[in-house]
Amino acid sequence: MGASLGHELLPIMPEMRFNHVTGDWVIIAPERAKRPGHVIVRATKNPLPSHVDSCPFCVGNERMTGDEFLSMADAHGAWRVRSVKNLYSALSADGEVFRGGNSLHAHMTGIGLHEVVIESPDHAMSPANMASDDRERLIDAYHRRFVAFYGDPRVDYVVVFKNHGVGAGTSLEHPHSQIVGTPVVPAQIRERLMDALRFRNDTGGCLYCETLRQELDEGARVVLENRSFVAFVPYAAMSPYHLWIFPKTHRASFANTTAHEREDLAAILGQLLRRVAMHLDDPDYNYVIRSLSPGESGVNYFHWYLAIVPRVTNSAGFELGTGMYINVSSPEESAALLRNDSRS
Amino acid sequence: MGASLGHELLPIMPEMRFNHVTGDWVIIAPERAKRPGHVIVRATKNPLPSHVDSCPFCVGNERMTGDEFLSMADAHGAWRVRSVKNLYSALSADGEVFRGGNSLHAHMTGIGLHEVVIESPDHAMSPANMASDDRERLIDAYHRRFVAFYGDPRVDYVVVFKNHGVGAGTSLEHPHSQIVGTPVVPAQIRERLMDALRFRNDTGGCLYCETLRQELDEGARVVLENRSFVAFVPYAAMSPYHLWIFPKTHRASFANTTAHEREDLAAILGQLLRRVAMHLDDPDYNYVIRSLSPGESGVNYFHWYLAIVPRVTNSAGFELGTGMYINVSSPEESAALLRNDSRS
Repeated sequence: MGASLGHELLPIMPEMRFNHVTGDWVIIAPERAKRPGHVIVRATKNPLPSHVDSCPFCVGNERMTGDEFLSMADAHGAWRVRSVKNLYSALSADGEVFRGGNSLHAHMTGIGLHEVVIESPDHAMSPANMASDDRERLIDAYHRRFVAFYGDPRVDYVVVFKNHGVGAGTSLEHPHSQIVGTPVVPAQIRERLMDALRFRNDTGGCLYCETLRQELDEGARVVLENRSFVAFVPYAAMSPYHLWIFPKTHRASFANTTAHEREDLAAILGQLLRRVAMHLDDPDYNYVIRSLSPGESGVNYFHWYLAIVPRVTNSAGFELGTGMYINVSSPEESAALLRNDSRS
Repeated sequence: MGASLGHELLPIMPEMRFNHVTGDWVIIAPERAKRPGHVIVRATKNPLPSHVDSCPFCVGNERMTGDEFLSMADAHGAWRVRSVKNLYSALSADGEVFRGGNSLHAHMTGIGLHEVVIESPDHAMSPANMASDDRERLIDAYHRRFVAFYGDPRVDYVVVFKNHGVGAGTSLEHPHSQIVGTPVVPAQIRERLMDALRFRNDTGGCLYCETLRQELDEGARVVLENRSFVAFVPYAAMSPYHLWIFPKTHRASFANTTAHEREDLAAILGQLLRRVAMHLDDPDYNYVIRSLSPGESGVNYFHWYLAIVPRVTNSAGFELGTGMYINVSSPEESAALLRNDSRS
């Protein structure tokens, strides 16, 4: 196929890489990015106004939100970040966890906590662009609510996440994150824990500490590093420009981070989100904090970390049918692009 | 929140349901469908022409495709379905599977098979609308290539799937499906097998046979049934209008279906896709066949089945961070809508 120009086209062999954390093989096939009709998904984002009168999250509309559980203000007393009950909660905060059904159709009451963290009073702001003290307040808000959620005995697992853009599943423009506390530990987390425990058993090490050490040794996938964190594209990244921010100090739970770690997390997160926006035309993205509970902070085989997933490709039937991923960008190329601090 | 109109609004409690097949809990929260900005994702599809001169899959352009492995013709000798090598294959068909790396960074050559099944010579056709003998040929083509893929000793797992529409991950308009043979069994399949084996151990039954029996007993989620198949919305469906087509006869592998079963599969698949298009405004969707290999056809604890997933909602940070799903439609309501054979 295709005209020969006097030299052979060397086919680039796809490679499969094992992702120890997810427990599955990933197909790395950069050639597939060249197929007809394939495009890096770009979000069409119009510039937003700073204030929208009807927006429940804009300053002045505080009574339009659910109950407020946290508000952090600047030196002048104006709120900069709030955490409020999600009015369209996926789980109900009222009631007890009752289980029923039979062996095949087990069910339980949908009890849990679901808050919205309003990241800024400004409708047009984002974690990439906010002032660093505002981003530090945001991380502190995550931390305080994360710890508080685990104070509810009905809650077994807490996830902190952000959906940026319609393609990443958001339904409101105003910058916000979400925190959900579920009455069960998700199977995905349980399986990752079991895999990490097996790694501990087999090697004596922490899978996450070892992964971090190897990434720092090789360097090819490291994007940024500061006092407390390393940001890298995983060796077997499931999608293009997928990023992990690992704490340098072994910690199983986000609950046990120190104040200076949270400050460093705010800094590296802001830098990465600006790089992603600059190099990938402000794509939709999700980020998520994966962590064990405060009560599991002594677990020596698991790390908390933050994952950023730019939504530049769509998953399709292959991913749905197998759970495996095809990544059309090599992790080393993804990292090289994001290491650039200016647009080439 | 909200004005009381003299009577209390009864809150509808979200429910969690355990999905035995995926091994995880699903949050069923129909109230979330009412949140501001939430929309059922509708695909904007323009009517397609029957023929596009530049389309490699259109009749007359056969030499634009990769090598042809199967072609099925009508009584007049005109091809109706073809299976050809994917020119932008995720895996390379040439070479051997070599493994390398270290305990943390394991890799292997990306060897495998990847074909495109061109479902029709007509650019504007679809499995929902094609003539029944064409749809039967399509299912037969899946079957023949599925079996043939397993004849390659480098292949450990084969998945048949279709991406319909850009939101479902397709990059070409012309109706086509894909078949991929991977050199490993995906972790997701392995885990489902282990769960099914444990169910066998604990109860003596086949999880899939028991699930089918209970669905038929209850009836509330059954959408369609014919001689060989039952189509239903799973008890703990992960997304709205998710459909499973289960064979009535226990079979671990799609390879061992009979000719009349494949005919019945073509019929029920066509009916369901027409219902989905009619009731949900022709949404993007994926379908996928999950099956064991021909060599595992005697496994008594696993079923092959076909899953249809209309892409009417976007997954977001919660799903990414936990692997759990929030379904904003109750499975019983989803089934009731799809049982209607005319638009209400």
